[in-house]
Amino acid sequence: MSDLNNVLDAIDNGLEESLERLEEFLKIPSISTDPAYRDACRKAGQWLVDQLSDLGFDASLRDTPGHPMVVAHYIINDSNKTPHILFYGHYDVQPPDPLDEWHTPPFEPQRRTGKDGMQRIYARGAADDKGQLLTFIEALRAMINASYSHLPNMTLLFEGEEESGSPSLEGFLIANREELSHDVALVCDTGMWDANTPAITTRLRGMVHEEVTITGPSIDLHSGLYGGAAMNPVRVLSKILADLHDENGSVTIKGFYDGVPELPKATKQQWDALNFDATEFLGGVGLSIPAGEKGYSALEQIWSRPTADVNGIYGGYMGEGTKTIIPSKATAKISFRLVGQQDPQAILDNFRIFVRQRVPADCKVKFNYEGGAAPALEVAEDHPAVKTAARALTEEFGQQAVMMGCGGSIPIVGSFREILGMDSVLVGFGLSDDAIHSPNEKYDINSFHKGTRSWARILSALVE
Amino acid sequence: MSDLNNVLDAIDNGLEESLERLEEFLKIPSISTDPAYRDACRKAGQWLVDQLSDLGFDASLRDTPGHPMVVAHYIINDSNKTPHILFYGHYDVQPPDPLDEWHTPPFEPQRRTGKDGMQRIYARGAADDKGQLLTFIEALRAMINASYSHLPNMTLLFEGEEESGSPSLEGFLIANREELSHDVALVCDTGMWDANTPAITTRLRGMVHEEVTITGPSIDLHSGLYGGAAMNPVRVLSKILADLHDENGSVTIKGFYDGVPELPKATKQQWDALNFDATEFLGGVGLSIPAGEKGYSALEQIWSRPTADVNGIYGGYMGEGTKTIIPSKATAKISFRLVGQQDPQAILDNFRIFVRQRVPADCKVKFNYEGGAAPALEVAEDHPAVKTAARALTEEFGQQAVMMGCGGSIPIVGSFREILGMDSVLVGFGLSDDAIHSPNEKYDINSFHKGTRSWARILSALVE
Repeated sequence: MSDLNNVLDAIDNGLEESLERLEEFLKIPSISTDPAYRDACRKAGQWLVDQLSDLGFDASLRDTPGHPMVVAHYIINDSNKTPHILFYGHYDVQPPDPLDEWHTPPFEPQRRTGKDGMQRIYARGAADDKGQLLTFIEALRAMINASYSHLPNMTLLFEGEEESGSPSLEGFLIANREELSHDVALVCDTGMWDANTPAITTRLRGMVHEEVTITGPSIDLHSGLYGGAAMNPVRVLSKILADLHDENGSVTIKGFYDGVPELPKATKQQWDALNFDATEFLGGVGLSIPAGEKGYSALEQIWSRPTADVNGIYGGYMGEGTKTIIPSKATAKISFRLVGQQDPQAILDNFRIFVRQRVPADCKVKFNYEGGAAPALEVAEDHPAVKTAARALTEEFGQQAVMMGCGGSIPIVGSFREILGMDSVLVGFGLSDDAIHSPNEKYDINSFHKGTRSWARILSALVE
Repeated sequence: MSDLNNVLDAIDNGLEESLERLEEFLKIPSISTDPAYRDACRKAGQWLVDQLSDLGFDASLRDTPGHPMVVAHYIINDSNKTPHILFYGHYDVQPPDPLDEWHTPPFEPQRRTGKDGMQRIYARGAADDKGQLLTFIEALRAMINASYSHLPNMTLLFEGEEESGSPSLEGFLIANREELSHDVALVCDTGMWDANTPAITTRLRGMVHEEVTITGPSIDLHSGLYGGAAMNPVRVLSKILADLHDENGSVTIKGFYDGVPELPKATKQQWDALNFDATEFLGGVGLSIPAGEKGYSALEQIWSRPTADVNGIYGGYMGEGTKTIIPSKATAKISFRLVGQQDPQAILDNFRIFVRQRVPADCKVKFNYEGGAAPALEVAEDHPAVKTAARALTEEFGQQAVMMGCGGSIPIVGSFREILGMDSVLVGFGLSDDAIHSPNEKYDINSFHKGTRSWARILSALVE
C-alpha cells in the first residue's frame, strides 16, 4: 500500500493542477442539443483524446452520425489474468438557459467558498459530467505518472450525446461490441448519499409510458344544449385516473405488483439507518407527506417501489375565462416506474384492460405508445466489483458506502448489459444540491478531490 | 276574424317580397365581434330603423359604448286598456369562419330546395337572428298595411351585440327603464320542437362556473427522482372530478339538489308524448347513451335537471411525446347548469367545501370565479301571454304548441325580469338543423312564412 499512498499524495499535491485542467475542460461549451455548438462538442472530445494520449492511451475520436465518441485503450497485460474494465462518462453538457439566472457565466468556471467553508466550482458541466469523469482521468494520471503497478487493463468510452438522448450510442456499441465488451463497466455519473457518505447506485427503476385519449362526442358540444345527456370524456378519464390508486396509495391495475420483490432485510436495515429525512426531501419542493404506498418509507417509495404517475392531462377549453363546452376529447400521459422483474409489456397490456373496463359503451379510447419501455435494473450488491468498490470508498471516506437506489433510469446501464453483456458499477460523487441541468451548476472541490482519490483506490483494489 | 284572414292572405301574397327584404338584410355583414365590421353593424341597425319608420314607427338608432341599439315605438292607444309589448331581437351575426366550408358565400343569400322538397335560404344570420326577427316585422307590415285594428302598443328593441356577450345591454336597459318596461316581452330567438310542431320555451337553465387549480409540488418534478413519494396534483384533481357523480349519474355535492323541483305530471306527460328520440339526438354527435341521472329521460336531463360538467382540464406536459414529470399544478374549469330554485352562490360554496375535503394536507387549492352566475328562469306556463301565444301557434300549425325547456341560458330573459320587471314569452321558429354559428346556416322558408303568420295571430290575440 505504500505505493498507493504515494499515488494519493500525488493527487493531493496535484489538486490545483487538476482543477486547472477541469477549468480548461469546462470552458468548452459542448452543448450537444444545439447545432451551433457542434464544433465545441468535437473540441471537447478532442481535448479528452489529447489528455489520454499524453498519458499513453491509444485514444481517438470516432465519428458517429452525431457527435463523436472518444475511445481510449490502456493495456497493461494481454493475458486474462489482469481484469479489463470499461469506463464510461460523457463530455457533452445541458444547455445553460435561463442565462440570466447564472451568477457567473456558465462557461467561465469560477471557484467560490460557501458559507459552510466548502470550496465549489461553478460552471455548466461542473458536476454533469465533466467534473465527475475527470476524477477518473486525474486518478489515472497520478497512477501512471507514479508508474503504479496495480492497474487493470482499461478501455475508456466518452459520449457526446448523453444530454440529447444518446441517439448514436446503441449503434456504436453494437458495431464495436468486441472492442468494448470487458469484465465490468465503471460509470461515473451518479451521486453520493451526502457530502460525507459515499454510495454505489445498485438499483435503477425501469419505465413504461402510455398516452390515453378518451373521445366522447364527435365535436365539442354546447354544455347547455347537451349537458346532462352527453357523456363528458373528462369525467370518464378522471374516473380512470382516480381508480389507479387505492386509499393506501397502491396501484390497482391487475398484476401490477407481479415481479416486485420485497426489499432484503439487510438492505432495508441499511436504508433505515440512513435516517433519510423525508420531510426535508419533500419540503424542498413544497410538499410534506410521502404520497406512495402506506407501510413503505419515502426512500423505499422512490428506490424500490413501482409507481403510476400522470405526467400531463388536457382536454376541452384551456384558455382564459370560460367556455361552456362538453369537450370531445380528453388525454392523459401516464408513466409507470418499474422495479424488480416487472414486465413493461405486461404492465402496458394490463393498463389497457384496466382503461377499457372503465370506458362507457359510447366513448372511444385510443392508446398512443411511443416506445422507450425499459425494465428495472439491479446490480447485485454481492457482485465482486461492487464489493471491491464499496470497500475502497469506505476506506477513503471513513464511512460505510451506501447501496443506493435511483428513482430514475440510466439507459447506458441497460445497454451495457444487453449489448455488451456487462454489469455496471455506478460510483459518483455528485450531491443533491449540484443543480445539474439548472443555472449555477456546481461541483464541490471536496467531491472532485476525494472522488479522484477514490478511483485510485478502486482501480488498485480491482487488480489485487 | 275576417280581418285577420285578410292579414294572413296578405302575408301569403307578399311572401316573395318579404323574402327579398330578408335577403337585403342578410347581405349586410353585421359581425359584431370583429371591429372591421363596425360600419356594417351600424348599417344593419339603420336598415331596421328605415323599415320601421316606413311602417310608421317612431324609430331611431341609439348609441351605446359598442354597436347601436334600435328602439322603435308604435303607440295605438295611450290608455292602459291596450296592452303594451316589448319585442326583442338582434341584428348582429356570428363570424362566418371557417369560410371554406360554406357552399355559397355567407353574405350572398341563396335559396335552395332540399331533397325533401323544402325551400331554404342559406346565409349567415338567416336563422340567428335576422330571419327570426323579420318574421315579426313582416307580420307588423301586413297588419299595418291592412289597417288592422287589433294591435297592441309596441316597443321594439334590436341589439347589435348579442353574439359578443351583450356588453352594453344591461346599462342600456337601466338607463332606459321607463321607456322599455311594459306588460310583457316577446323574444324571437328560439326554436320549434320540429318542423311541424310549434313551441314556446318556458324553462331556461341557469349557470355557475368555477376554475379550480390544485398545486402539489412547487415545481414540476422528475418523476424518477420523486415518483412515489411526491403527491401528483392530477391524481388529486382526478379524484375530485371522479367523485362529482355517483354511479347513477347524480351530482354528489352536498345540498346540490336543494331547490330542484320535480317536473309537474302534466309537463312530464307532454314531454313523454313528444317521443323524443334520444338515440337520434345523441347519435348526431357520436354518442348513444344518455349520461345523466338514471330514472330521467334524456329530455328531462337537458331541460329540467341540473348538471356538473368539466369544460376543460389541463396540467403538466401537453406536447408531443413524453416528458416524465410530476406536474406542479392541475386545473379544471367546471360549470353547473341550474334549474328551479337552485342558488348559484350556495352551489359555489358547497362545491368549494367538496373540493377542500378532498385536497390532501400538503396540496393547495385555488379557486378562480370569474362571475357570470345566473339562476334558472321559468316563465309560468299559465302566464296569460304564454297561454295566448300557445293558442295562436296551435291554430297556425294545427299541432299543439309544446312547452319546451332550453338547456342553455338566454341572458336577456333574466335582464328583462330583473331590470324591467317583465316576463318574456319565447317564441321562435328555428330548427335544430339550422346550423346557427356554423357554416351553411339556413332558415326554412316554411319557418319564415308560418312564423310571420304566427306573429300576426299572436299580436291579434293579445289585444282580444
